Amino acid sequence: MVSANPQTIHKLPFNQLGSVNRLKKLAEDPLDLRKEGVLTPTRLSKFCAEAAGYKFLYGTEKVTEETIHTLFELAQERKVLEEMQKMQSGEIVNKIEGYPSENRSALHTATRDFFEDPQKGVRAAEAAALARKEVDKLKLFMEKLDKENRFTDLIVIGIGGSDLGPKALYLALQYLQKKDRHIHFICNIDPDDASIALRDVDLKKSLVLVVSKSGTTLETLTNEELVRARFQKQGIKSEEHFISVTIPGSPLNDPKKYLESFHMWDWIGGRYSATSMGGGVLLSFMFGFDAYWELLRGANAMDKVALSKDLSNNLPLLGALFAIWNHNFLNYPTMALIPYAQPLSRFSAHIQQVEMESNGKRVDRNGIPVDFQTCPVIWGEPGTSAQHSFFQLIHQGTSTIPLEFIGFKEGQMEDFAFKGTSSHEKLLSNLFAQALGLALGQNNENPNKVFPGNTPSHILLGKALNPHSLGALLSYYEHKVAFQGFIWNINSFDQEGVQLGKVLANQIIECFAAKKESTKTPKQSYPLGEAFLKHLDAFN
Amino acid sequence: MVSANPQTIHKLPFNQLGSVNRLKKLAEDPLDLRKEGVLTPTRLSKFCAEAAGYKFLYGTEKVTEETIHTLFELAQERKVLEEMQKMQSGEIVNKIEGYPSENRSALHTATRDFFEDPQKGVRAAEAAALARKEVDKLKLFMEKLDKENRFTDLIVIGIGGSDLGPKALYLALQYLQKKDRHIHFICNIDPDDASIALRDVDLKKSLVLVVSKSGTTLETLTNEELVRARFQKQGIKSEEHFISVTIPGSPLNDPKKYLESFHMWDWIGGRYSATSMGGGVLLSFMFGFDAYWELLRGANAMDKVALSKDLSNNLPLLGALFAIWNHNFLNYPTMALIPYAQPLSRFSAHIQQVEMESNGKRVDRNGIPVDFQTCPVIWGEPGTSAQHSFFQLIHQGTSTIPLEFIGFKEGQMEDFAFKGTSSHEKLLSNLFAQALGLALGQNNENPNKVFPGNTPSHILLGKALNPHSLGALLSYYEHKVAFQGFIWNINSFDQEGVQLGKVLANQIIECFAAKKESTKTPKQSYPLGEAFLKHLDAFN
Repeated sequence: MVSANPQTIHKLPFNQLGSVNRLKKLAEDPLDLRKEGVLTPTRLSKFCAEAAGYKFLYGTEKVTEETIHTLFELAQERKVLEEMQKMQSGEIVNKIEGYPSENRSALHTATRDFFEDPQKGVRAAEAAALARKEVDKLKLFMEKLDKENRFTDLIVIGIGGSDLGPKALYLALQYLQKKDRHIHFICNIDPDDASIALRDVDLKKSLVLVVSKSGTTLETLTNEELVRARFQKQGIKSEEHFISVTIPGSPLNDPKKYLESFHMWDWIGGRYSATSMGGGVLLSFMFGFDAYWELLRGANAMDKVALSKDLSNNLPLLGALFAIWNHNFLNYPTMALIPYAQPLSRFSAHIQQVEMESNGKRVDRNGIPVDFQTCPVIWGEPGTSAQHSFFQLIHQGTSTIPLEFIGFKEGQMEDFAFKGTSSHEKLLSNLFAQALGLALGQNNENPNKVFPGNTPSHILLGKALNPHSLGALLSYYEHKVAFQGFIWNINSFDQEGVQLGKVLANQIIECFAAKKESTKTPKQSYPLGEAFLKHLDAFN
Repeated sequence: MVSANPQTIHKLPFNQLGSVNRLKKLAEDPLDLRKEGVLTPTRLSKFCAEAAGYKFLYGTEKVTEETIHTLFELAQERKVLEEMQKMQSGEIVNKIEGYPSENRSALHTATRDFFEDPQKGVRAAEAAALARKEVDKLKLFMEKLDKENRFTDLIVIGIGGSDLGPKALYLALQYLQKKDRHIHFICNIDPDDASIALRDVDLKKSLVLVVSKSGTTLETLTNEELVRARFQKQGIKSEEHFISVTIPGSPLNDPKKYLESFHMWDWIGGRYSATSMGGGVLLSFMFGFDAYWELLRGANAMDKVALSKDLSNNLPLLGALFAIWNHNFLNYPTMALIPYAQPLSRFSAHIQQVEMESNGKRVDRNGIPVDFQTCPVIWGEPGTSAQHSFFQLIHQGTSTIPLEFIGFKEGQMEDFAFKGTSSHEKLLSNLFAQALGLALGQNNENPNKVFPGNTPSHILLGKALNPHSLGALLSYYEHKVAFQGFIWNINSFDQEGVQLGKVLANQIIECFAAKKESTKTPKQSYPLGEAFLKHLDAFN
């Protein structure tokens, strides 16, 4: 199936791969889900993969056995399992050949490689040992906090990867929240974010967690100073309340300023840091250490699924392949991620970051501009709420939106019986109904009541949303993204795209500063920035 | 400019309009924002519209004077100002000619037409009088509540339009929150939503607001029963705590069950109900009646802007035209809405609903399938946070994402000075920097550090986010959407696309019910639904 020279084939441009050309051919006449006899109970029963506690139901994707087989050929042509093994064993995968680049491992999997059959590569083993040391330190720290009982509130300062992932995980597990513990997130440089978050918070009983890998993030440093100023104003010693998560050697690693510092390392990208101390500290504080530990166990279970040679049940790979089929071959420009679980209310926002920051790239791993589409726009909100919002467009708009649904057999808390079924059963009924309705469509004499149908989707179905299944779900997306990156042959682990904005923002910050000290002119004048500032001046 | 026969031209298909064909021509070689001499301070200063307290800065759109002129011709060919006048004066605009349809006015503007120069059309005047009566009733009700001081907490039950808009407005104005008032939203049929929302809420001190126009929404009715059951369990008379917002004659309009009922009418779509009692009750409870009144005043001010014949300063029309230019002519499939204001954290989710539910349509107002793209996917999160997330893709991905930015000269609460500038100045610096960086791009010897640029955006800039400017902003989007609908000649005011899912969900609910009463078989068997249920059974 894979041709003679594996050395060169690996670098073949996407559009020159044999499987890509076979998939293009198949995409000329893809499966029509509306056709008589296509969507049958047998298909829905059979098109099901299973691993790490999840079923992956893909009977409503526009794929035949042949499509799936050819997608597996694509995976093999790109040697994605070898790439995944390289990544998890710590090889330098975060790089652009022939150009200066970050040149690092991407070892977020090491932050949970504490269970059966750990990675044996030296880098991975060393990373896991470092990560485990922090986990043990965290456990002791939490025991101490519980004993002392000084803190009821946690104020978390972080942005991007230090905010979206941890916040999404926190919201997903609120049912486990310890009594009398509260959390307040501050992410945005907008000072109104901090003002709202800090309102009615008793600083004397607050632990402040500052999360910044580099220790140099503008928003986080500024908000840290803002919170410290509040402590000072109330005459409370901030150094007895602040803790940090950062790399060793960063400015946030200062025992004079922090009660404790937990570490991450340059081999963990911000958006991949949720299972590191970036998520661990707050999850342990709010839910207890054991919940965090179970999350790690679940993530590790899915890490192993990603390495599985049984492609038919390698869920992250299946997710990546269907996404690529829908995006690169059927040319759908976006994908909606719709969890039928209100506790996952911010999960789509986190995965939006994981996917789009990782794979929103335009050069391949040799620095050559690609001639195909990389990451689609990923967006979504929880069902059933979303059904009363943008689902109108998904059903009756002019463009096709493929969907990834998430659902669970059971809810987390009390269910409610009403008119013969429970609320959770109504939730699941809606989930399944949407997958079917979007695929089948509906004819009607009234053209305004016609549903064109033939919209592809699949469902990730778990038993219940708990720390273990949440960890597995998170890991599923991290590896789905990595597999897509391997197939597109792009570097999913850097984020050069944030730099230009930073540089220009600093120039405009200089303009603001210069306006105040009217004797000083800005170091370098920036007429385009000043043109915007003049618009501000015009408000009286 | 407009041809001889206005009767027929109105029904001309989009692609046959003269202006559309001129715009297609222009789109073959659109303005390149990166080109030497294009993006100048003069352009940024001059390409600015202004109305109702907002500046609309569009120097970073890919338009020339000629593009704008031709877009205005499109607006005139479609007679959009006449259409807007028809809508605001209460003509039946919610209809499909020749087919059964809702056949209603779309008079959300009447819910705030209480100020200078009100609409004179009979329908609009009658609607405004009805709406005003509810507003006055609300004012008295709030005075009574304040006097009695029985309630500290408000539990809001509603979904879709009864949830996203009111919640977005609540979050935007939290700086005005009354002391010791708290709010809890329940929207999803997922019972975990209610469990989390109701945790630690003292029902004895809680007012429960049930919002459902029809009084038949599955999620809302179920959640109402769930909350009533909790009251009953605690031995509290729910009828002394529940109020409702609904149409006259709905099941929610029952004095035996509700302390008070406020009205909406069939001429207010759910997604357009935020300025009606759907938003008014909760905003008044949390912020005081005056804040709600100012919101109405601001919305009314922008309603008048939408009627303005000065096209160059008709902000909602400009928003619609640039959106159409980017979507229909430059073929960008999505648009990102990025408020640089953390209080607008859920505003994008509401506007996503307003735009996509309104204009996610595939037949025109004569029931004829369209041969062009209607509504794009609208998505977004607040800046600066978004810069640390999906902005990587916007800067360096393979597809162009046009952006609409929102910003304010001043923040709502305390600012914080650090290193020579305030946090709010840093926020604005980032906003302007993104608009410039996305337009200009950047070359580099390292291909991974190249920013292709030429990404269009515009900025809605206000003085401060307060009830008045928030009302104007909301109205801006409602009318932007209406203008797009007029230009595409679609009905923006119905939502047939929600129906199919409801029907299928009920069939699957029957399957669940039948499983419980094993003697009873489902009324009608539904093998596709049952295939999904079997997957659930397989979890042990």
